[in-house]
Amino acid sequence: MEAGGAQREAAQPVLNVSEETPVAGVLRAVDTEEETPAAAGQVVTPYEVSAPVGGIDYEKLINQFGCERIDAAIVDRISCLTARPPHRFLRRGIFFAHRDLNTILDLYEAGEKFYLYTGRGPSSESLHLGHLIPFMFTKYLQDAFKVPLVIQLTDDEKFLWKNLTIAECKRLARENAKDIIACGFDIERTFIFTDINYIGREFYENMLQVQKRVTFNKLKALLGITPEDHIGKVIFPSVQAAPSFPSSFPHLFSGNDQLRCLIPCAIDQDPYFRMTRDVAQKIGFQKPSLIESSFFPALQGENTKMSASDPNSAIYVTDSSKQIKTKVNKYALSGGQDSVLLHRKLGANLDVDVPIKYLNFFLQDDDELEHIKKYETQHQEYKEGRMLTGEVKQRLVEVLSELVATHQRARAQVTEEMVDAFMALRPLPNMFG
Amino acid sequence: MEAGGAQREAAQPVLNVSEETPVAGVLRAVDTEEETPAAAGQVVTPYEVSAPVGGIDYEKLINQFGCERIDAAIVDRISCLTARPPHRFLRRGIFFAHRDLNTILDLYEAGEKFYLYTGRGPSSESLHLGHLIPFMFTKYLQDAFKVPLVIQLTDDEKFLWKNLTIAECKRLARENAKDIIACGFDIERTFIFTDINYIGREFYENMLQVQKRVTFNKLKALLGITPEDHIGKVIFPSVQAAPSFPSSFPHLFSGNDQLRCLIPCAIDQDPYFRMTRDVAQKIGFQKPSLIESSFFPALQGENTKMSASDPNSAIYVTDSSKQIKTKVNKYALSGGQDSVLLHRKLGANLDVDVPIKYLNFFLQDDDELEHIKKYETQHQEYKEGRMLTGEVKQRLVEVLSELVATHQRARAQVTEEMVDAFMALRPLPNMFG
Repeated sequence: MEAGGAQREAAQPVLNVSEETPVAGVLRAVDTEEETPAAAGQVVTPYEVSAPVGGIDYEKLINQFGCERIDAAIVDRISCLTARPPHRFLRRGIFFAHRDLNTILDLYEAGEKFYLYTGRGPSSESLHLGHLIPFMFTKYLQDAFKVPLVIQLTDDEKFLWKNLTIAECKRLARENAKDIIACGFDIERTFIFTDINYIGREFYENMLQVQKRVTFNKLKALLGITPEDHIGKVIFPSVQAAPSFPSSFPHLFSGNDQLRCLIPCAIDQDPYFRMTRDVAQKIGFQKPSLIESSFFPALQGENTKMSASDPNSAIYVTDSSKQIKTKVNKYALSGGQDSVLLHRKLGANLDVDVPIKYLNFFLQDDDELEHIKKYETQHQEYKEGRMLTGEVKQRLVEVLSELVATHQRARAQVTEEMVDAFMALRPLPNMFG
Repeated sequence: MEAGGAQREAAQPVLNVSEETPVAGVLRAVDTEEETPAAAGQVVTPYEVSAPVGGIDYEKLINQFGCERIDAAIVDRISCLTARPPHRFLRRGIFFAHRDLNTILDLYEAGEKFYLYTGRGPSSESLHLGHLIPFMFTKYLQDAFKVPLVIQLTDDEKFLWKNLTIAECKRLARENAKDIIACGFDIERTFIFTDINYIGREFYENMLQVQKRVTFNKLKALLGITPEDHIGKVIFPSVQAAPSFPSSFPHLFSGNDQLRCLIPCAIDQDPYFRMTRDVAQKIGFQKPSLIESSFFPALQGENTKMSASDPNSAIYVTDSSKQIKTKVNKYALSGGQDSVLLHRKLGANLDVDVPIKYLNFFLQDDDELEHIKKYETQHQEYKEGRMLTGEVKQRLVEVLSELVATHQRARAQVTEEMVDAFMALRPLPNMFG
């Protein structure tokens, strides 16, 4: 899984959907509730995110995928049920779509718990900010709902998709686990596993159960897999599906096969879980619920790609304050005008401005964010041209530097023994406590 | 794996190769040494064995698959190297084809050992005689060459292909293990495993290595897998490939990654291992060698199918002497003539006669077999009509009753603890001794 992986690979501008990368429904008739109608010009799968100029149309994506928008009522309800303010990713519509979230909330209200499942494909040494988003949000969900969490590190996936050795993927998984642990997960409620270490027995049985009920044609329609692809790509979706079923974790959920699962992820992962939801009840489990985020943009803007080969396309959790400052000032696409005079007159175009998008993700203070974006205050503001790009960028550098420094301090505390402890096959007796 | 599985499913008469079940090379150009040219009218894959009336043309199959015939020189060489007479399955051309067997023998002569790998798909409670053949032969190879053996029980395969639950496949695997152990394998040199219990870690890594190098199109050409098939069928070939590589068994072969593997199996399994051989060197291993048998016929003759739904199509290892007698007398296709008079005149047609085929597999005494088949002795003989079908069948009943009774006695001695012991993850310190 690359939950939030699309943040790295996302927003590559492709104007024509090629016949080799069909979206669901192009190649076959819609035959289940989980199938997706085709949408022209916009492709979102775990392997490809492309959109016409202007970026992803999320409203269209919701219709295309058949998921639902997270509205104010749901945000309020989560706040109410957890007796704490909703996370800014909820307040600001960053986690914007869901499947069956209300079912999970109804049951939670009635006293029934669930478990969380998220993951990451360990393809790079260090994470960038986009990678942190699902983990920050999952940490909030874990704390707020007091539920167990399984985190899948798909070292197998990265071996299959990238030009990496198995040994390197295993090493990266362990390194990435340290960054994930640094997000503050509760060891009493969290099991982290790598596929290569963990796959077998009950987990493998659930992979088989899925495999028996999904055809190659189905994957072709859902994910754009072609007959020219190697068979690892055909197999992996069942690996990502299995953690959605509690019996894949007998040391945690033995005897609790109807326990529900909530999956926080970026919306590019939705096709995997449409497939998973489609088979869940046929093999005796509940459908997993999903809570899905939009994509985190590259510094160069929505229609560019965060790329490991261009370190200036993203802020990494290993960056120094100086690097952050340089990257933001030099590379972050500004929606401001070319001259101060023009800027004062016209204001910034917030639709394309990357600093304001980043602040939307990471600036904690709602009032300050609104102050920068809107014009109803007595201060200088960005949209109305009373605040300059340089000032906004300076604030962003402060925010990101603090965030990254905090992460680095936490990461430095994570030992090999802690990784072993999070990955240990063990019961979690107080996981719902 | 269903080594010898084709014995059960084999010889279904299909006169036209349909477009949905292509044989290798039909759908794409030959691009490696392991690809197979198409042959009209005869289809042999692990899932389908069909031939025009007259049965499988094994000479054609050798050309079709690109393997080599086991000639008298190889049989003599095996006898010489192992300082014992060759097994009757070798003497009589039942194991008739090979790949790179000479390489294994050259190295063995130079003091280098190898390991054996065979298996079974546990789809039925009790084995029939056809199922025993690869195990009887493998037991001979183990004793003669003094080498370790891994036996794969593909409970996953049977779940994927048959209408069985996982629990039932796991149970059948254990029951079948008892029959396999009853063949007399040396516990000091034998590791038996079920896929669902054993798959993971190093074994799974080798599955991934294979998966990354085999396309869906390749499987389509090799095995006739179609886009309408479920993805379990796409995945399984990598499961059957993995035991060909020593690093899949770190408890046995750690540090010995170049150890060669010899696979005794029925020739319908050849496509799986063509695929395996094709990738072996690309992922750092030696190509496995193969020693391949022809198919064991149903009682009703070469062009019929041994079927679990028709217990009278095969002799099972659980049959009583009385059942054996009835089945042989009532159902075994005779090549004898309709009347004694005609039979004395024309003799038996040994090409279709099932009793003589079964005796060819199981009657140990070469002289007696020749005596029945040929006419150069002073006694009554079958081919020349001096021996009647009833007499041949009576001899067959004796031979099979003894074989089955011996098996049943051995099977009764196999305890659950012995199954656990054969399946225990353990080093085998004297496996080459």
